[in-house]
Amino acid sequence: MVNVGVFGYGTVGSGVVEVISKNAEVIRKNVGDSVKVKAILDLRDFPGDPYESLIVHDVENIVGDPEISVICETMGGVGAALKFTEMALKAGKSVCTSNKELVALHGPRLLELAKENKCNYRFEASVGGGIPIIRPLMNALTADKLVKVTGIVNGTTNYMLTKMTANGADFGDVLKEAQDLGYAELHPEADVEGFDAARKLAILSSLIYGKTVNFEDIPTEGITRISAGDIAYAKALKYKVKLLAKYEDGESGAYAMVAPFFVGEDNPLYNVDDVFNAIAVRGNMLGDAMFYGKGAGKLPTASAVVGDVVECAKNIGVNVPVNWADETVKLSGFEGSKKSFFVRVAAAESAKAKASFDGLTEVKAQSADEYAFITKKMSEKDFAEKTSSFGAEKVLNYIRIED
Amino acid sequence: MVNVGVFGYGTVGSGVVEVISKNAEVIRKNVGDSVKVKAILDLRDFPGDPYESLIVHDVENIVGDPEISVICETMGGVGAALKFTEMALKAGKSVCTSNKELVALHGPRLLELAKENKCNYRFEASVGGGIPIIRPLMNALTADKLVKVTGIVNGTTNYMLTKMTANGADFGDVLKEAQDLGYAELHPEADVEGFDAARKLAILSSLIYGKTVNFEDIPTEGITRISAGDIAYAKALKYKVKLLAKYEDGESGAYAMVAPFFVGEDNPLYNVDDVFNAIAVRGNMLGDAMFYGKGAGKLPTASAVVGDVVECAKNIGVNVPVNWADETVKLSGFEGSKKSFFVRVAAAESAKAKASFDGLTEVKAQSADEYAFITKKMSEKDFAEKTSSFGAEKVLNYIRIED
Repeated sequence: MVNVGVFGYGTVGSGVVEVISKNAEVIRKNVGDSVKVKAILDLRDFPGDPYESLIVHDVENIVGDPEISVICETMGGVGAALKFTEMALKAGKSVCTSNKELVALHGPRLLELAKENKCNYRFEASVGGGIPIIRPLMNALTADKLVKVTGIVNGTTNYMLTKMTANGADFGDVLKEAQDLGYAELHPEADVEGFDAARKLAILSSLIYGKTVNFEDIPTEGITRISAGDIAYAKALKYKVKLLAKYEDGESGAYAMVAPFFVGEDNPLYNVDDVFNAIAVRGNMLGDAMFYGKGAGKLPTASAVVGDVVECAKNIGVNVPVNWADETVKLSGFEGSKKSFFVRVAAAESAKAKASFDGLTEVKAQSADEYAFITKKMSEKDFAEKTSSFGAEKVLNYIRIED
Repeated sequence: MVNVGVFGYGTVGSGVVEVISKNAEVIRKNVGDSVKVKAILDLRDFPGDPYESLIVHDVENIVGDPEISVICETMGGVGAALKFTEMALKAGKSVCTSNKELVALHGPRLLELAKENKCNYRFEASVGGGIPIIRPLMNALTADKLVKVTGIVNGTTNYMLTKMTANGADFGDVLKEAQDLGYAELHPEADVEGFDAARKLAILSSLIYGKTVNFEDIPTEGITRISAGDIAYAKALKYKVKLLAKYEDGESGAYAMVAPFFVGEDNPLYNVDDVFNAIAVRGNMLGDAMFYGKGAGKLPTASAVVGDVVECAKNIGVNVPVNWADETVKLSGFEGSKKSFFVRVAAAESAKAKASFDGLTEVKAQSADEYAFITKKMSEKDFAEKTSSFGAEKVLNYIRIED
C-alpha cells in the first residue's frame, strides 16, 4: 500500500483525490501496489464531503507521517507551497505538482533536494495540463537533439484568439466573454500578457537545455495589441494568429520567446483551437512531432499529477535523475534569430517602408489609410533597428510569421 | 561504455548506426554513459562504408560477445529475426526493434523471455514510427483508464486518401503514383488491405488490455473499395475518408477494428494528411489527447529505436515490467458497437432503404442513379443484418462515420 498526502483541496487537489479513488484498479496495476489518499491538508473544513475525515489542518500530520511516501502539492503559489514542498522532500517524501510558478522559480533546487533525500520531484501537470509532454521529453525523445519546440500552452489566450477569428470581434469584447465564462481571470495579465506561457516555456527550455532558463529572461509579448484588424489581415493571408511559446536552437544559438505569430495552414498548430493546447517538437533525427490535448481543467490536470504519483510510487527510496541543473543560463540567440514580419503602417509611409524594408512583399491593405507588407526573413535585431529608425510610433502593428 | 549490436544493416539499421554516432553527446547525457555500436550483423559486405569494419556475418559474434549489452533488431521478418532475438534475450542482452510483425506475433513471449533473463524487449518504433506512443502508454497515461484509441497508423494509405481527396483521383491511379514514389510496395496488400494497421493496433490494444489481442481476430477492412465517388460524397458532407485503427472500450465491451471512416472537421485526426500518422487517445480522466508525427522514414524510425536503446542502457541487468500477458483475449464488443453509417444504393432502392433504415438522413446524391443516406447510430450487427436482408449486392458502398 502506497499512502498519498495532498496539499490543498481546491480544484486540482479534489481532482487528484477523485482520480486516485475512481481509477484505483488501473493505478494498482500500473504501480504493482495499491495507492490510497491518507490525508488532505487544507485550512478549510469540508463538512459533508466524502473525504471530510481525511482533512488535516497541520502540515506535520502529513510530512511527519512515516506511512505517507508521496505528496501531491496542489495548493499553488510560491509561499507556503515552497515551504511545505521543502519539508516533504527533506522528509524523503516524493512531491508531484501542477504548480508551474513554483517549478519555474525553484524547480532545480527542489530537484536537488529530492536527490539528496532519495525521493523525487515531478511536475508533468505544470505544462500542457493533461498532455504528456514533460515525461516524453525526459524518457522518450532521448535519442534526439531537440532543435525546436513550439507550443500553444495557454488555453485562455488561445480561446480568445479563436473567438476573435470566428467572430471578427475585438480583444476587449472577447476578454469580457472569456471572463464571464470563467476561462479568463478577473485580473487576466498572467494570461494575456504571456507570462503564464513564459513560465511554462522556461520549464520546457530548462529541461531541453539542461540548465535553468529564468522566465524573466524570456522576451515575452502578449496578445493585448492584437486587434480585429490584425485578425482580418491574417484571415485574408490564410493565417491564424496564435500565441506561441518557442524554443529554438538555430544558427544564432539557442533562444526562447513568447509572442503572437501568424501560423500557416500547413503547420499542425494551425488547427489547435479553443482551449486546446499543443506542443510541437523538432528533433534533428525524429523530424516533427506534436502532442495535443486539453491544457487545463480539473480532471485532465489531476490525471497528469496522478501519472507522476504512479512514477514516484514505483520508485520509493530511489531518486530518478532529471537533467535540469541549478545553474542559470542566459540564452543569447534571440537577437540574431531570423523571421519574416507582417507590418502595418500609415498609407503615407509606404515609400519610406519600401526604402527601409528592402525586398518586402506588399499585402492588400484592409483600409485605404494603411500600407501593409511582409518583410523578407531578417533578424530580430535588424527588424528592431529598422522599425526604430523608421519611427516606431509610425508602425501601427507588426506580427511575426512562423515557418 | 555501453556496447550495442545491430541485426540488419538495411534502411532502419543504418539509420540506427547514424543516430548513435551523430547524437553521441545527447545520448551520453541521457544514459549517463557513452553508447557505441560495436558490431553489425548482415549477410552482405559493405565495402567503402564508414562502418565496414564493424560488419559481422555470424550472429555468434554479437550474442556471444560479453561486452555487448543492447541489440537493435532491424532486420524485419519473423524467421531469423525471431531466432536471433531469442538468442540475444537468452544471453541477457536487451533487444530494441522496429519489427511490428514480430512484436504482433510473439511480443508477449519475448517480453517473458526478457524478464526471465533480466533484460528488456522494447518496440517503440513498431507503431507510429518516430512518434512516441508506446512509452507514453506505458509510462505517462498511467492514471487513466483508456477508453478509446483511434489512430491513423499507416502512412501509405493516408497518403493515397489525401491524394484522392485533393485530386478527385481514383484508387488505382493514386496507387500507381504512390508506387512510383516509393510510398507503396509493388505488392501493396499489407497496406491497402489494412493488415499493417491491424498489426499495429494489435500491439496497442494488447498494451492497453494487458492481454494479447491477435491481429487475425481484428475485423479489418482496407481502402480498396473507396472510390472517387465516395470521396466526392465525403467532401460534400465536409468529411475526409481516413483509414482508422480503433480500440474502444464501450457499452458493448472492448473491441478493436480497422476500416475506412468518415472523419469530421472537428476531429483532430481530420487534419492528419499525407504520410503523417497520429494516434488519438481518450482517458476517462484525461479526456482527449493526440500524438502526431512522421510514421515512417529511416531517421524518425531509427530515433525511436535508439530511444529504446537509451532506456535499455539505463536498465542493464534490470527487467522493467511491461503489462502485456502471454494470454490471448478475444475482444467481444465489435458486433454490439454503435456507429452511424453512410450508405449508397441504386436510386430504384430508395423506398426500400427508407423502410429498412428507419430514421435515416438523406444525403444529396452525386448522380441521378443513386440514393445516398446516413443511418441513425446502430450496432454493427444490426447494420450487417439490415444490409444483408436488404440485399448486400444492392448496397453500392457504405462507410462508417467516426464521432
